[in-house]
Amino acid sequence: MDYPSFFEIAKDFRVIMLDSYGVVKNHNGLIEGVGNTIDWIKNEGKTFRLLTNDASRSQLQQKESLGRLGLKNIELHEIVTSGMMAKQFLEQKITEGKIAYLGTENSAEYILQSGLEHIAVRDIDIENLDDISCFVFLDDEGFDWNRDINKTVNILRKKTMPVILANSDKFYPVSHNDVAVATGGIAKLVESMLNRKFIHFGKPDSQMFMYAYEQLVDEIGFIDKKEILMVGDTLETDILGGNKFGVQTMLVLSGNTRADKAQLQIQSKGIIPDFICKSVIY
Amino acid sequence: MDYPSFFEIAKDFRVIMLDSYGVVKNHNGLIEGVGNTIDWIKNEGKTFRLLTNDASRSQLQQKESLGRLGLKNIELHEIVTSGMMAKQFLEQKITEGKIAYLGTENSAEYILQSGLEHIAVRDIDIENLDDISCFVFLDDEGFDWNRDINKTVNILRKKTMPVILANSDKFYPVSHNDVAVATGGIAKLVESMLNRKFIHFGKPDSQMFMYAYEQLVDEIGFIDKKEILMVGDTLETDILGGNKFGVQTMLVLSGNTRADKAQLQIQSKGIIPDFICKSVIY
Amino acid sequence: MDYPSFFEIAKDFRVIMLDSYGVVKNHNGLIEGVGNTIDWIKNEGKTFRLLTNDASRSQLQQKESLGRLGLKNIELHEIVTSGMMAKQFLEQKITEGKIAYLGTENSAEYILQSGLEHIAVRDIDIENLDDISCFVFLDDEGFDWNRDINKTVNILRKKTMPVILANSDKFYPVSHNDVAVATGGIAKLVESMLNRKFIHFGKPDSQMFMYAYEQLVDEIGFIDKKEILMVGDTLETDILGGNKFGVQTMLVLSGNTRADKAQLQIQSKGIIPDFICKSVIY
Amino acid sequence: MDYPSFFEIAKDFRVIMLDSYGVVKNHNGLIEGVGNTIDWIKNEGKTFRLLTNDASRSQLQQKESLGRLGLKNIELHEIVTSGMMAKQFLEQKITEGKIAYLGTENSAEYILQSGLEHIAVRDIDIENLDDISCFVFLDDEGFDWNRDINKTVNILRKKTMPVILANSDKFYPVSHNDVAVATGGIAKLVESMLNRKFIHFGKPDSQMFMYAYEQLVDEIGFIDKKEILMVGDTLETDILGGNKFGVQTMLVLSGNTRADKAQLQIQSKGIIPDFICKSVIY
Repeated sequence: MDYPSFFEIAKDFRVIMLDSYGVVKNHNGLIEGVGNTIDWIKNEGKTFRLLTNDASRSQLQQKESLGRLGLKNIELHEIVTSGMMAKQFLEQKITEGKIAYLGTENSAEYILQSGLEHIAVRDIDIENLDDISCFVFLDDEGFDWNRDINKTVNILRKKTMPVILANSDKFYPVSHNDVAVATGGIAKLVESMLNRKFIHFGKPDSQMFMYAYEQLVDEIGFIDKKEILMVGDTLETDILGGNKFGVQTMLVLSGNTRADKAQLQIQSKGIIPDFICKSVIY
Repeated sequence: MDYPSFFEIAKDFRVIMLDSYGVVKNHNGLIEGVGNTIDWIKNEGKTFRLLTNDASRSQLQQKESLGRLGLKNIELHEIVTSGMMAKQFLEQKITEGKIAYLGTENSAEYILQSGLEHIAVRDIDIENLDDISCFVFLDDEGFDWNRDINKTVNILRKKTMPVILANSDKFYPVSHNDVAVATGGIAKLVESMLNRKFIHFGKPDSQMFMYAYEQLVDEIGFIDKKEILMVGDTLETDILGGNKFGVQTMLVLSGNTRADKAQLQIQSKGIIPDFICKSVIY
Repeated sequence: MDYPSFFEIAKDFRVIMLDSYGVVKNHNGLIEGVGNTIDWIKNEGKTFRLLTNDASRSQLQQKESLGRLGLKNIELHEIVTSGMMAKQFLEQKITEGKIAYLGTENSAEYILQSGLEHIAVRDIDIENLDDISCFVFLDDEGFDWNRDINKTVNILRKKTMPVILANSDKFYPVSHNDVAVATGGIAKLVESMLNRKFIHFGKPDSQMFMYAYEQLVDEIGFIDKKEILMVGDTLETDILGGNKFGVQTMLVLSGNTRADKAQLQIQSKGIIPDFICKSVIY
Repeated sequence: MDYPSFFEIAKDFRVIMLDSYGVVKNHNGLIEGVGNTIDWIKNEGKTFRLLTNDASRSQLQQKESLGRLGLKNIELHEIVTSGMMAKQFLEQKITEGKIAYLGTENSAEYILQSGLEHIAVRDIDIENLDDISCFVFLDDEGFDWNRDINKTVNILRKKTMPVILANSDKFYPVSHNDVAVATGGIAKLVESMLNRKFIHFGKPDSQMFMYAYEQLVDEIGFIDKKEILMVGDTLETDILGGNKFGVQTMLVLSGNTRADKAQLQIQSKGIIPDFICKSVIY
């Protein structure tokens, strides 16, 4: 099948939003040539944003990590993560107590720096939960699954509190063929044990799009949503979220959605991108 | 149990958003005294909004319907409905073909007036779906359940298209004790038959809050989210949505959530309102 | 693709169990030639059973209905229906009160003839449920969907009682392309409204297989499960149920599972038939 | 509330079936006095069975383990476990290749001794799955969760095969207040990652009841199901399974179902035991 060129379509938009994993990078590192694409976006005078459900790194850590992979031309303010949405929620709604978390210190640092203390699941005294006011699923690393998942279940059985999830992806690719269970999968297990639904952040929720949109308006003035193109590799997050928010959407086949199954998935899910391209580099 | 007065809490906010069903009205009509509450909000110089998941009526129809119940002091621009979100989606994303719908002409009129033709399920020729480009679940009335639900299933099996749901409530109260299946319940049945997820609009999705917030900023200038109070009777829609958006939330016990079960539900769901009051009239 | 002959495989078994819809008949009536297949089974001295999730007819009604279609060589005791399992449950567990039902008088007659009175949803006085002791979803016909589904929801909100489902199929084919919502779909809607799980009868539950097996042992003496072949058109009911019960299973492509999708469905569901044939007539 | 005596009710039955965990033992060991109850059952000339969803031990291991706790009067043939059902399935349906498993060597030994080789997830070469023909979730111990759950997901993504679950309990109690994730929880996580349903064994499935019933008939001749009493602490497994199979059921409050919540749970689930007693020792 023949796909149109990304550039041919993108040239008509004022703002280009790219998902990160599957669009800009993959398990091998940067998608070759993506630096040129971002240069082109900027040289054409378009506004650029990176919208990612990766909550394990702050804006700065994302920038540095992309830099290490060789992508130097992304600015701090051009990065929007679902972790930022979770952080905002915590700042606005949790005003006292300690925030318990499952994940790495690293992600804890940036999401939980709202003035409140935070404490890893492994360090919690399960007999004394009085000062724990909120629970955050941050990351699939940084803890012992056997011990700390069970401990999480028991903490949440013992005390009711808001439980939030900075990234609801159930898995992420670790090689061409293999995946690993992500925070969303672990949270799903705990939800099923407790028969509860936690508070999820990230695409397809409109929030990240709104946040990016408000920033854009501050930066470049009023902009019609039809002038914005959201590019992603996943129908249920990038494309559904973009469609609901009202921007134009482009599915690329360089990540989760494989070329040979794209039409089938679009049909079976009924989530229809405005455009389909092979990748952002052609 | 003793609850604080609505007025005591509301006096500290610049913007008051009320859910409609269960807060302003119920199956008997208007909640007695709610007119005074809205007068008070306005006399105090606060800004008022009605945020409702009722998609069966346009802003004007909502205003007229509340007027007929005796509530005269609500302005058109103070009403935000999930149907308006669905309408926006259709305007922005569906640019050709006919929009199929399940529901009343009445609700079809306002949601579907985007320049495209619309057609009721009963009038669709199932052998010729070529020009149908989108399907909308509008309402639980205005069609024959036996015939048109089956027809809907077969239409959506035969042709893939975006399917949207202007209100995802599964039921609504029809008397003190009885409920009726709402559009969300019927859509759920069809989703389960097709093994698909449709596109849902309305609280708790952030979209309606964002829409209202943007309007507010246009009208009264910048406002901190902490100056906004969302009042609702349902934890999973009003309170969860408000919490995620970052405004302060008040649960009232005049609707879906009964006083004797409120604490249990808050705990089992982990959705925690900032305030609990008996009603907006005390 | 080439499939082996049904006869070539069936010849090695002592007992042949056939599903009804999709194996023996379809929306057009009898599958042409199926009478010869059943003659062959019997002439070869094999034992025959028809195992169907169709609960809308008694054994006698099934026999008469197949007879009207032209299939005369099936005996009463060769028919096992999920309705018989539901009937047994009612006889054993419900010893007083009236049995409420949603469905036709016809199916009510045979399932509910346990000595207790039964009453259709439409005839129930919702203000007086004292003597209702059980609720049965029988059929997708014989009631007004708009009115009686809502009434069912409210009856079950008002009084707790066992709710049973004689057939959990969510839909059934009405033509080559079209389906209709079956009792299982309606029950699913009510389950979702009430956030409850009802008691389901029929394949893949082991019960119908056990019932048939016990009968067989009474009739022909001890039989090894490996000498039994279950033939069906649906992976999740016929094949999964047969596999769990421990008999050999054959998928036929004359019903729900289409030839071009069979391998994909087997793989994605991980339900693996021992044999695949085109139909029982080749 | 006053509950009738177990003995008062049990005296009228010929066969008494007890669930193990929550009825006979709990996290502290044996329920004090249960030995006397089993002596009484046998001295009265009744037939006794232990029906347990614990698949981590063979009949012999169960007998020895109960013996070590001080319960000496249970015979090998009186024990029925869900693992025996899984074992039967494997023997009847899996005739070649190796059986992969997640769990301890211990449980692997008895379930997988069907003549085929078995191999732990940690020892599988993921690049060479050719000879793996089946996958069994055995146990929540005996493997590294971080590593082997991910490996399980990838094995099952790479090769389709039957996946069975010898025990679907999602958690088990480890102290008066705390629980631990059981095999059923881990399998649920993997099911959700793969969007598949595995084959589950154990109560409430009718199979274990049928197995026990057939054995009984062999041992003591024909018995009416109404002469059998199933006693358990869990509504969704023991009571639902017993109700569906057609025996009389007794809920005891010495395990999962607490006295103060029993009525609420019975009502909200609609699973109604014929009798409720405090425990089998009074």
